[in-house]
This record gives sequence, structure tokens and C-alpha cells, in this order.
Amino acid sequence: MTDATPLKPHERLAAALRDDMDAVNALIRTRMASEHAPRIPEVTAHLVEAGGKRVRPLLTVACARMCGYAGADHVKLAATVEFIHTATLLHDDVVDESRQRRGRPTANLLWDNQSSVLVGDYLFARSFQLMVETGSLRVLDILSGAAATIAEGEVLQLTAARNLATTEDTYLRVVRGKTAALFEAAARVGGVVAGVDAAQEDALTRFGDALGVSFQIVDDWLDYGGAGDGIGKNLGDDFREGKLTLPVIRALARGDATERAFWRDALEKGKSEDLDRARAILARHGTLEETRQEALAWRDRARAALAELPPNDLREMLGDLADYVVARAE
Amino acid sequence: MTDATPLKPHERLAAALRDDMDAVNALIRTRMASEHAPRIPEVTAHLVEAGGKRVRPLLTVACARMCGYAGADHVKLAATVEFIHTATLLHDDVVDESRQRRGRPTANLLWDNQSSVLVGDYLFARSFQLMVETGSLRVLDILSGAAATIAEGEVLQLTAARNLATTEDTYLRVVRGKTAALFEAAARVGGVVAGVDAAQEDALTRFGDALGVSFQIVDDWLDYGGAGDGIGKNLGDDFREGKLTLPVIRALARGDATERAFWRDALEKGKSEDLDRARAILARHGTLEETRQEALAWRDRARAALAELPPNDLREMLGDLADYVVARAE
Repeated sequence: MTDATPLKPHERLAAALRDDMDAVNALIRTRMASEHAPRIPEVTAHLVEAGGKRVRPLLTVACARMCGYAGADHVKLAATVEFIHTATLLHDDVVDESRQRRGRPTANLLWDNQSSVLVGDYLFARSFQLMVETGSLRVLDILSGAAATIAEGEVLQLTAARNLATTEDTYLRVVRGKTAALFEAAARVGGVVAGVDAAQEDALTRFGDALGVSFQIVDDWLDYGGAGDGIGKNLGDDFREGKLTLPVIRALARGDATERAFWRDALEKGKSEDLDRARAILARHGTLEETRQEALAWRDRARAALAELPPNDLREMLGDLADYVVARAE
Repeated sequence: MTDATPLKPHERLAAALRDDMDAVNALIRTRMASEHAPRIPEVTAHLVEAGGKRVRPLLTVACARMCGYAGADHVKLAATVEFIHTATLLHDDVVDESRQRRGRPTANLLWDNQSSVLVGDYLFARSFQLMVETGSLRVLDILSGAAATIAEGEVLQLTAARNLATTEDTYLRVVRGKTAALFEAAARVGGVVAGVDAAQEDALTRFGDALGVSFQIVDDWLDYGGAGDGIGKNLGDDFREGKLTLPVIRALARGDATERAFWRDALEKGKSEDLDRARAILARHGTLEETRQEALAWRDRARAALAELPPNDLREMLGDLADYVVARAE
């Protein structure tokens, strides 16, 4: 890293919270161990050490410190959040039959589906053990609720795929399950452990939710090439998997019979060769631009919620993080 | 049911605790619902309503009442235990690629692996929400620990399969993960919610563990036809799946080079056509009879632990249950 490369917001947060994040990473390594089943730390390390950005545990640690927390339980909660995230990634890759994650072969490919399912279960159980150690029933309530919302959202995504009748309401619920529920819980428990009042807890909840929703909407926008440069990661994955995301749901509502037939063939029947035509239809109805605007609106909500929290350097960095999440769409 | 058909011990327990078990079943139905993802109650109902014996929730309710509990939280804990059990069944059937469970097609066959993985995750999360409602961190600690032991045991079973070097120590760990950990936790939390002292909690823990171990050892014995009538359910499943169970581990240790070659071909390489030869080898070394004796010894431990608990009708029925579990091997 030279002076010429300015740090990104999550990197600045990680630098400002280095001691905390070192403790989180050490705890993750300790708790992913299993004396008797070496397969468990092998599979977990493959994913945990693949260089993820640790955004969720950073949120927990940053929110706790922003709210003046001086204890050590936020480290346990941050590790908890990363374990839940890792467990869902392991299970998602089995569900989606994915072959790549973070630029490396997935665990289900390197080992097998069985290991991914069972190691995910182990991490989920370990995350609850960690939570119990904090002695906070409030925290347990929040994170077990988030885990239920995540699983429900994933099931909803599974049953909504290839279904042209999917509504924007269902879409938002899937978005919350995939991404926003854990962002929200991560931010909120940081405040709870710091002993914030109800108003601040509510602000943290809205901040985490809005940050997660904007993040996921940008992802869905990029899947269709976003503004049109065509360099979005995994361009067309959602299209091929028949996922009903916001730009498609809105274009469907406005399309004529020919377009509806196109979407039916592509999404319901899986004849998804013509991504260019899909992108042209979305562009014609302006729904890619609307989707971008939605992401920006959720970013604004995240920033508005932050404004109700204690003003300090960490708050500023969290605001920059909200900008950074949607910068891919600006 | 006529007078001529005496009730089995678990049926007598269910009859004696009918109001409690009705409440448990009602709570299970309420909590397995999902307003937005109907796939969740569909999959859960398929399994939950397939007529399982509800042994684990019965244990929780019976242990709580045996210890004098007069409140209502044992119902939540019993539903929790059944949800954890159901979640592990859903995931096990994916891991084992099973096609039948409780005489019906498995969920992974009727729907798909994705639904089984995600609905299992949902039930697991819901089970933790239920536990949190009891407000007992002790209970959360016990059940999250059990969940970790279960997942670890399943991973261990996966990596120990087809490995002739598997030890009796590993075997017992797998048995605890598959069966005894949840039996133990189910019995123990019944006592915890009833406010028993440390000595009684320890007795409940030993009772649940020994009951579960004896249950699983009998299962493993029956898989090779037990005493030789050959009517054990799923006769030879473990043999074909290359599982190293107690009778095989002991026969391997005493076999000559020819026998070791047979086991290597059958268990490591999957050439498991000759179940009769396997059974003959086990019989020659007497390891089926030893396995049966092990199950009876664990039954005796379960009964010895029970003797330390309050003497009443429920205790007597739990003792009968311990006998019943191994009666298949007597």
C-alpha cells in the first residue's frame, strides 16, 4: 500500500479498529477449531481466509465503538456475525451449486456438499455458543431473529425464482433475507452491547437495514451491466438463474405481449441465451436507471439514520461506507 | 387400541403427559409457520406429521415433570428439541442422499436438496428463538453446545466412513453426535427448567446420554441382523455405506490378513455385495454379542442414573423406556 492509493472506507474502518479486528480474527480462528473433526477447520479456513472484507463484523465493532463501548463483548458478537455469514455462504453454495466464491473454488467443489452442509451447521451452533457467552438475551433474540429472516428469505428466493408473478414486496423480502437482515443485526447488536437507548438502537437498525438493501440492489443492478459498461461481476447470473430482481419486475409490468413471452422463455423456461436483448428491454423501460435511483435512495436513508448517532470519526467512516457501497452505481 | 394391546413405554409416557404433549404439538405447528414462504411449513409438516414417536420432546417434558416442575416453559423447550431434531433429519437426508424416512419419501426427494437445507436452517433458527423466550441462559448454553456436538459428530462420521483406522473412541463420539447429545440435552434442560440441584442435573445428563448411546448401539447391532433373524430394519445399510460401527471395529482388530482384505474391499472400496460373509465374520469373533452386551451395559447406566432422581410414576416409565430401547436386542 503506497501513499498514492487512498484507503477505501472499509479499509479505513479496519485500520482505525485494528486491535478489535485482530481480536475478532483470532477468536474466529480459535472457535472454528474442532479437536476431533479436522475437516471443520479445513473447510472454514478455506472460506474465512479467502480475503473477504469482513464488512459485517466491522459493522458490529464500529457501531459498538461509535456508541462509546469500552468492553470486550463486541469482539464475540462480531465473530458471531461472521460465523453466521460463513455458515450461510456454505449453504448458499450448495443450494446454488456454485463453483466459485471470492475467486476460489467453492467448498462444495473442493470437498463435497455434505461437508458444506454439516460444517455450516457447526458454525451456526458455534455462533450461538459465542452469543450465550455475552450473557445478553437481547442480543440472542436479535441474532436468532436475523437467522430466521435469512433462512426464510432464502426459501422465498428459491420458490420465487422463475416465477413471473413475483412482486416488488417479495423482492424486498428476499433482499432483506440475503443481505440486509444480517447487516441490520450486526449494527444493532453493536449498539445493544454498548447500552444505547431505544432511539439510538432504532437508528442503528435502520442504518444497517438501509445499508444492506442498497448494497444488494446495486448488486442486482450490476448483474445486468448497470450503466452499460458490461463489466459487472458475474454479468447475467441472475438472468440465467431465473431470478426476478427489481429491474426485471418493473420491466415485466410495463412490457407488451412480445416482451412478456421473451421473459417467460428466458426466466421460466431457462432459455436465457439473449442477455443483450434483456438489457435492451430494461434500458427501454428505464428500469435499470430506476433501480440505480432506488439504491441511492436507500443510501440516503442509511445516512439519515447515521445522523441520529454520536458524531465522531467512526460515524463519518460509516457514512463513507454507505457512499462506497453505492459508488459502483454512480 | 384395544385392551389386549398393552401400551409401549413411550406411549404410556405420552398418555400420562397428554396435555403437555398436546401443547408441544400445537406450539410446533404454530412456530413452523412462515407467513411469506409456504414451502417452509409444507416441508416441515411432511416430516413432523409423519408419525415420529416424539421421544426427545417427551424426554424434556417427562424429566421436567418428574422433577416437580409446575410451569409452562418445558413446552417451549420440548418444541425446541424437536425442531433441532427435525432440522438435523432434513440435513442428514441430504448428506446421506436418503430416499425414505419414516416409511415415506424424504423431503429432498419430494422437493429438492435446496429446500431441505434451507428449511433445516429456518427450523434451527426458530428453535433458538424459542429458547430465548424461556429467558434461561443455562438452557441456551446446553442446547447450543448440543447442536455443536451433533454437527461435529456428523462431520466425524462423514470423514470416518470407509476408514478402517476408525477407533472405538471415534465411534462413541459419532454415536453421541448422532443420537446421545440431543437425548442428553433434552433430559437435562427438563431438569434445569424445574430448578433441580447440580447432583440431579448431573444424573439427568448421565441418564439422557446413556439412553441415547444404548439406543444407537442397538441400531448399529440391528443393521447386521442382530441375533441373526435378519429382520432388522435397513439391514446392511451401514455395511454398504462403509460405516465403521462397533461390531466391525472389533472384528477388524482381531481379523487375519484375509479378513482385513475383505473389509478393505467392502468398506473402503464399496464392494459390499457379501453381507452374509460380513455377518459370519462378526459372529465368528463374537462381536455382535459383545455389541449387544455394550447396549445392555449402557441401559444399566441409564437406570442407575434414574435411581438418583425423584421416585414417582414418571421415573418408573422412563426406566421402562430405557428397557424398551434395548428390548430389540434382548
